[in-house]
This record gives sequence, C-alpha cells and structure tokens, in this order.
Amino acid sequence: MSDAFLTQLSFLLDPSSVLTGPSDRAGYQGDFALPRGRKFIAVARPKTTEDVSNVVKLCHSHGVVITPRGGGTGLAGGATPIDGRPGIVLSFERLNRVRSVDSVGATMIVEAGVTLHAAQAVAREAGFLLGIEHGGAGSSQIGGNFATNAGGNNVLRYGMARDQALGLEGVLADGTLVDLLQPLRKNNAGYDLKHLLIGSEGTLGLITAISLKLRPLPVRRATAFVSVATLNQVLLMLELLQRSLGECLSAFELIAKSGLDVHFAHAKGGFSPIGSEAPWYLLIEADTAASQYDVEASLSALLGKAIEENLITDGTIAQSEQHRSEFWRIREGVADATIATAAAVKSDTAVAINAIPEFIERATKAVLAIAPECRPVPFGHVGDGNIHFNVFPPTAAHLESFLAVRSQVAAVIEDIAIEMGGTISAEHGIGVLKRDSLSRMRPPPQLHLMRQIKAVFDPGNILNPGKIL
Amino acid sequence: MSDAFLTQLSFLLDPSSVLTGPSDRAGYQGDFALPRGRKFIAVARPKTTEDVSNVVKLCHSHGVVITPRGGGTGLAGGATPIDGRPGIVLSFERLNRVRSVDSVGATMIVEAGVTLHAAQAVAREAGFLLGIEHGGAGSSQIGGNFATNAGGNNVLRYGMARDQALGLEGVLADGTLVDLLQPLRKNNAGYDLKHLLIGSEGTLGLITAISLKLRPLPVRRATAFVSVATLNQVLLMLELLQRSLGECLSAFELIAKSGLDVHFAHAKGGFSPIGSEAPWYLLIEADTAASQYDVEASLSALLGKAIEENLITDGTIAQSEQHRSEFWRIREGVADATIATAAAVKSDTAVAINAIPEFIERATKAVLAIAPECRPVPFGHVGDGNIHFNVFPPTAAHLESFLAVRSQVAAVIEDIAIEMGGTISAEHGIGVLKRDSLSRMRPPPQLHLMRQIKAVFDPGNILNPGKIL
Repeated sequence: MSDAFLTQLSFLLDPSSVLTGPSDRAGYQGDFALPRGRKFIAVARPKTTEDVSNVVKLCHSHGVVITPRGGGTGLAGGATPIDGRPGIVLSFERLNRVRSVDSVGATMIVEAGVTLHAAQAVAREAGFLLGIEHGGAGSSQIGGNFATNAGGNNVLRYGMARDQALGLEGVLADGTLVDLLQPLRKNNAGYDLKHLLIGSEGTLGLITAISLKLRPLPVRRATAFVSVATLNQVLLMLELLQRSLGECLSAFELIAKSGLDVHFAHAKGGFSPIGSEAPWYLLIEADTAASQYDVEASLSALLGKAIEENLITDGTIAQSEQHRSEFWRIREGVADATIATAAAVKSDTAVAINAIPEFIERATKAVLAIAPECRPVPFGHVGDGNIHFNVFPPTAAHLESFLAVRSQVAAVIEDIAIEMGGTISAEHGIGVLKRDSLSRMRPPPQLHLMRQIKAVFDPGNILNPGKIL
Repeated sequence: MSDAFLTQLSFLLDPSSVLTGPSDRAGYQGDFALPRGRKFIAVARPKTTEDVSNVVKLCHSHGVVITPRGGGTGLAGGATPIDGRPGIVLSFERLNRVRSVDSVGATMIVEAGVTLHAAQAVAREAGFLLGIEHGGAGSSQIGGNFATNAGGNNVLRYGMARDQALGLEGVLADGTLVDLLQPLRKNNAGYDLKHLLIGSEGTLGLITAISLKLRPLPVRRATAFVSVATLNQVLLMLELLQRSLGECLSAFELIAKSGLDVHFAHAKGGFSPIGSEAPWYLLIEADTAASQYDVEASLSALLGKAIEENLITDGTIAQSEQHRSEFWRIREGVADATIATAAAVKSDTAVAINAIPEFIERATKAVLAIAPECRPVPFGHVGDGNIHFNVFPPTAAHLESFLAVRSQVAAVIEDIAIEMGGTISAEHGIGVLKRDSLSRMRPPPQLHLMRQIKAVFDPGNILNPGKIL
C-alpha cells in the first residue's frame, strides 16, 4: 500500500515537497514536549491550499492518517505522530504566503505556514499590531497558533488567538475546502464553524489560512518592574491598573522570588532591577496608539499611588528600550530555566483571577508536603488567571527523592486547580500529554458531544488521531 | 397527550409559571419581525436552571417542541413558533438573577432572563462597562443576546456578544446541564462548545446563564457629529481615527442625508447638528477609562486635522450630555423611522470594511434601476462593515408600484452583498426569515456539517425547530 500511496503523493506535489529519507524526516518527529513518536511514511509539504486538499483526499482514500505540523513548538505533543496506522506528517512550512493586507479594514490574510514572527512584522510594517505574543514566536507558525488557540503574554488585553481571527480557510477530513475567510466583523449566518476548528488541534480540520484582526500599533509605551509583599496585593494592583489605565494595560506578569533565583542560576548571573527583596515581582506593561496620551506619566503616577497605599513595596519604570528588554529578559529567563530543567514539573494551570492567591498558597503547601526540598516557582499571566505552577527539583543532593515523587507533585497541582474550578490546559492544549486529564475537566456529557462532533467531521479518524480525545 | 403533558408541566413549575389561557399567551407569539406564528400549548416560565432542565426533559420525553424566548426583540423570527408539532414557548423572564459580580476578575455571572439594560446597570454600579449596546437594550434579555450573538453599536471596539462571554451554562435537548460557567480567560481543554452554542439561536441548546467579561468603565468621553462628501473619505476618516485614538474609538456610525430626512419626517421635526448639507454624516464616539487622557482634546484636534486634509466638510463635538443625547437620538431616530415604516425594505448586510463604498454605490444604482422613485437609506456601523442597506418607499403617489417590486429590491441588495463576499445576516441572525437565504451564504459542505451538528445535539429536533436550518 505505502508504495502506491507514495507514488501518488509524489505525483501530486513536486518531488522536493515529499520527504521520505530517515534523515529528512528527523526534524518532524514531535514537538518541544514530546520530541518523538511513532514512525511515519513521509513528510508532505504542500505549497497551496489546493495541494493540502489533494493530499488529504489521497490520505482519505488510502486510510492514511495525518499528523499536521506547524513550527513544532507545542507543549502537549500535538505534533507528534502516535497512531499505529500508516501515516504522514503534513507540514505547513511551504504554505507561507501573506495573501493580503488591508489597512482600511485593519485585517490581513496569511497562510498557515507563516511564522508568528513574520506575521507580526508584516502587521507592524503596515502600521498595526498583531495581538499575539508568546515564547514560541520565532518559529511557531500561524496555523499552529490557531489550531491550538495559543495564549501568551498579551491575553489580558487582546484575548486568545481565536480573538484575533475574523475568518479562516480549512480543509476537512475528506479534502473538502471550507472557505470562511471573508474578514467580516459581523456574520451571524449559522453555526460558528470557525471557532470549532480553532483550538481543535487539527482533529476536526486543517487550518490553511487565517483572516487576522489587526490592532492599532502602540506609539507610546511604559514598562515597570515592581515588588509586592503578598498575592492579595498583586490582585489589588491589577484592579487599580485596569481601572485607571483602561485597555492600555497589556501585560501583568507575576514572577516569584524563586523565579528570579532559578533564572539567575541558569543564566549564570544577572540581578534584580529592584534593590530590595520581596516574595513577588510584577512585570507591568502599558501602551497606547493614542499619541497624545502620556501613558508613562500615568503609570508613574499610579506606581506612586500604589507605594503610598502600600500595594507595592518598590517599583521602577524602564528608561530606555534596552532597559525594557532587560525586564523582559528576566521574565523569559524564568521560562527558559524551566524548559532547560528536565526534572522540573511544568504546569499550564489557570483559575479565575480572584482565586489566584488561594491557588498558589494551596499548591505551594501541597507540593512542599510531598517534596519538602523542592522549589515551587509559580509564574505567569495574572491578568488572565494563567499561573504556570512550575516546581523545580531540589539541589543535586535530593534530586533522587524528588524524582521518586515527581508525578505525585504534578498530580496534586492539577488536583487543586481542578478542585477550584480551574483548568490544567490553559493555553498549551490537550495534545497527547493531557489527554487522560481531559475527563477531569470535562464531564461525560461534554466528552460525549466532543466525540460525536469528531465523528461528524472525521468519521475515519485520520486527522491527528489520538489527540485531544 | 397535551393534557397529561400540561399536568406534569404544572407539577414541575408552580402554577403561575405556566400560562395556558389565550390572553396570557398573547404576548409570546413572536418577535418584532414576525409577531405571530403557530399555536402552542403553553408558556413555561422556569425560575431556575434546574426548572429549565426539568421542563426540557419533560418535553423531550413527550416529543413536545420548544420555542425559547428572551425579550422578543429579535428581527429574524427566531422566537416565533413555527413547527407543526405540539409545542411550548419557554420564556426566560423569571430566570433573572445576577448570580455574582467579581470586581477583581472583572466578571459577572447573570442568568438568561436578565435584561441587557439591567445587566448594563449592574456592571456600571460595580465600576465596569458591559460591552454590548443596541437598540433593543431596554427589553432584550442576556440569553437572547447570546443565543443570537447580538451586535450593535460598539462592535468595532468590544466585538460581538460572543466576545463578552467567558463561559456559559446551558441545557441540552435531553435536559442535560452543560456547565461551562467558570470565568476562565484561558482554557484550551477540548472543543469550544461555548462558541457553538452562542449564535445557534436556541437550536443546539438553551443558554441559562453567562459569565460576562467586563470592561473598564470609561470616565472621559467625546462625541462628534461630522459631515462628509464621499464614502471614500468616510473610510479614510475611520482609518485616521483608529490609528490615532487606538482602542478609544467606540462608535463610528454612518447616516445618509436621506436618513436625516426620513427621521425628521417620522419625528415630525428636528434639525441637523451641522448647518451645511452633505450626502453623509458620521456619529463618532471615543471614550477612555484613563482619567489622565484628554480624549476630547484628541478628538477635537483630529477633527481639525480632518477638515484641513479635506476628509470631512464640517464637524461639531457635543458640549454636554444633553447635546450628546441629541446626536444619538438622530441615529436611533433613523432606526425608529425604519421600523415604523412597514413598507420599507430592511436589510442586515455586511461586507468587508474596505468594500463599503462599492457596496453602497452598487446597491443604490441597482435599487434605483428597479424602483426609480424609492429612497435608499444606507445606515449603520461602518467600523464593522455592517451597513443596513434599507430602502424607503416613495411618497404615497408611487407606493403601489414600489410594493409590486419590493421583494425584487430586497433581493438585489442581498445579491450584491453576497456577490461581494459579504453576509445578509450580519447581526440579526437567521431565524425563520433568513432561512432560505442561508444556502446563499454557506456552501453545501458547510450546511451539511451544520445539519450533522444539529443532529448530534438535538436528534429529535425539539429545540427551536425550523430555525436556521
């Protein structure tokens, strides 16, 4: 079978678009979290939506399963082939044109394989902002961002990836094209298939292009680094800023003192922008497209007020672009240290914003009860409730004993998040790695609906099989 | 059958919650656009979600169909019973509690029967804004707003109703409760059932409560009325304001000169806020929660710039709240005149923003070719492409001849919108009245998916049967 299939696949696409050699396939075996899965026959790299449709039709008729692949920066194993049947990896890297930019309508249409970084740059050149920013920006692709409904640092202002989509183009399991690309800001004509495909991790259809909603490009910006004594004060600070700065607040990131420590240890150096020590730090950013609004003066006045009212213990505003980069490098440095520490427990938990203090306190107590020497590093996006409650192993002396209870530590964090009505899959998706946990977040009737929806869209289960459900 | 059913229904709810007399049922027969449909057995008015679930279970087991009803302000016949089987109207008017308001998380949970007006007031009292505003605010209910994914005047800033939903609670066709209420700003745990239920007009499930995302309450505001010579300049003005005011631009409404005329005729008086005549007028509003940002000075400077650059011919900024109300009364007056003129063709067309001038020009030519004496009154939300291309009949002398071609006039407007990749159901939904047009906007594979999704959610077709599909 696979020979006939491969011949036809090579006939559909040009030869350079089909990779079959082991070394060629090596770069397509998984994502950041699950780098290697099952064997697959070939990598198909279509250049047009029509090519995608033809490849899917071919797979459909041969019963060949498809693992779609964007930049491979996922953190749930979504791009890792795991089905036992013959399969291909469908990589979108060559489907990477910017189809159009509309500066009057503030929209642009880009294909799935355009990197987030490139899409951001095109938007910026046209005088707009694309409201998605996260650690994987450099190599993650637009298609993957929407297939997983990516989150990131600016969700409190612009929402998730799905909130940037005015329309999409996709290919269904039988190769049928779904054209929902019109960049209409209002369209109540029947069920919203767009939102169903977004976040379905390639299991209901393959996203080939997106109509993006662009935002006004900020022209004034202020970035602050502040220290805070308690988590309740962190929330009061968030409330103060949201009420006083309105939509201008674009980032409000929490870093624990332990986060600074692991970052400095991993980076072999560095220092806090704030002299005095505190258990919590915040990276705050506000910006505006309104050139007449002095957002820096506003933020500065608000920091003064916050110090007066004992909401924060100290704070500083970046005085230059370089200074600002240093603040952000600290935030990204904590993420880097986490990814680089294989033994660290990584979580993608979110709770309602007002439940953050209780969540962090309970989770901290619980993990220390299991592994007294470990280092909890809660970290992330307070403005949208998404605290990655990560846990670093203790120093080498106690590593063994930590590894013995590592899965218990991971489980107790999830237990608490779920008990508190939260999620353990806030922005990274379900993929393979969270599949067994899905039933802890979704009761049987919802899972039943999801399975039936999957059966409607992909009765042969050839689209990213084994993911989500 | 219906006696046994009624007995059980009255047993489930208290007696005052079931209306069966003809006069009691009179107020529940339809909506603004289709005030009367088929007969129905009773009106059920549950007070709790559990009641809703029990009523639906009873209907499910008896094969009784359900027409859900909010405020009855719809414009597509969505709340009008039209199925031939025995049925009830399920009114949400008594399911009307505000369950919680969270000022830290900027969310609130309200039940379906809370009026939009009341929900706006609760948000305001807590120091927030609910980002939905439209003509039906007084009596339309939150449940209906989300069942139809309502649009309105502030979509360019806050998005559609669905963009205000962090979560929802609903009841499926067999009475199963779907609890997706947690107000999580990030949750990528499986398919997005919330967005599927929103906008499904009660055909996939009944929305019983919504977790609303609240916005910072504006504390400074500026409202302008300006005159413009051409539609291209209208778009350039939109671009200028969006780039310069950022997210502060909250309304950008187009009124044709003919709109002022029909409003003044209907209101028996009134005058334009601008002395000089022009073919087009814009009602522009900008506001901000940032108390330090003088948005009025900004808008005033931008109007000056726009006059200098010949984008607008004249403009004035409201000097008082009363002055502002007068501007808005003109805009609402055009809508009132349209609704009050039975013979007027009303449309709910939207196209991509940059296609608005071409759309209006083509539609104007086309309707005048069919009915040379008619008065085209294109009108609405430029900022989101939703131009209601309404057409008023000529004066009494030519009314007969207009009525003879009225349906042709309506059809040609739809033809042009669809030909241009637009929609004819931008914000009012499909209901009954647009059902036959759905296939003009959605190709067969999409309709097929929708039908299969409906079959998954409601195999017995008892939830608002005959609507959308």
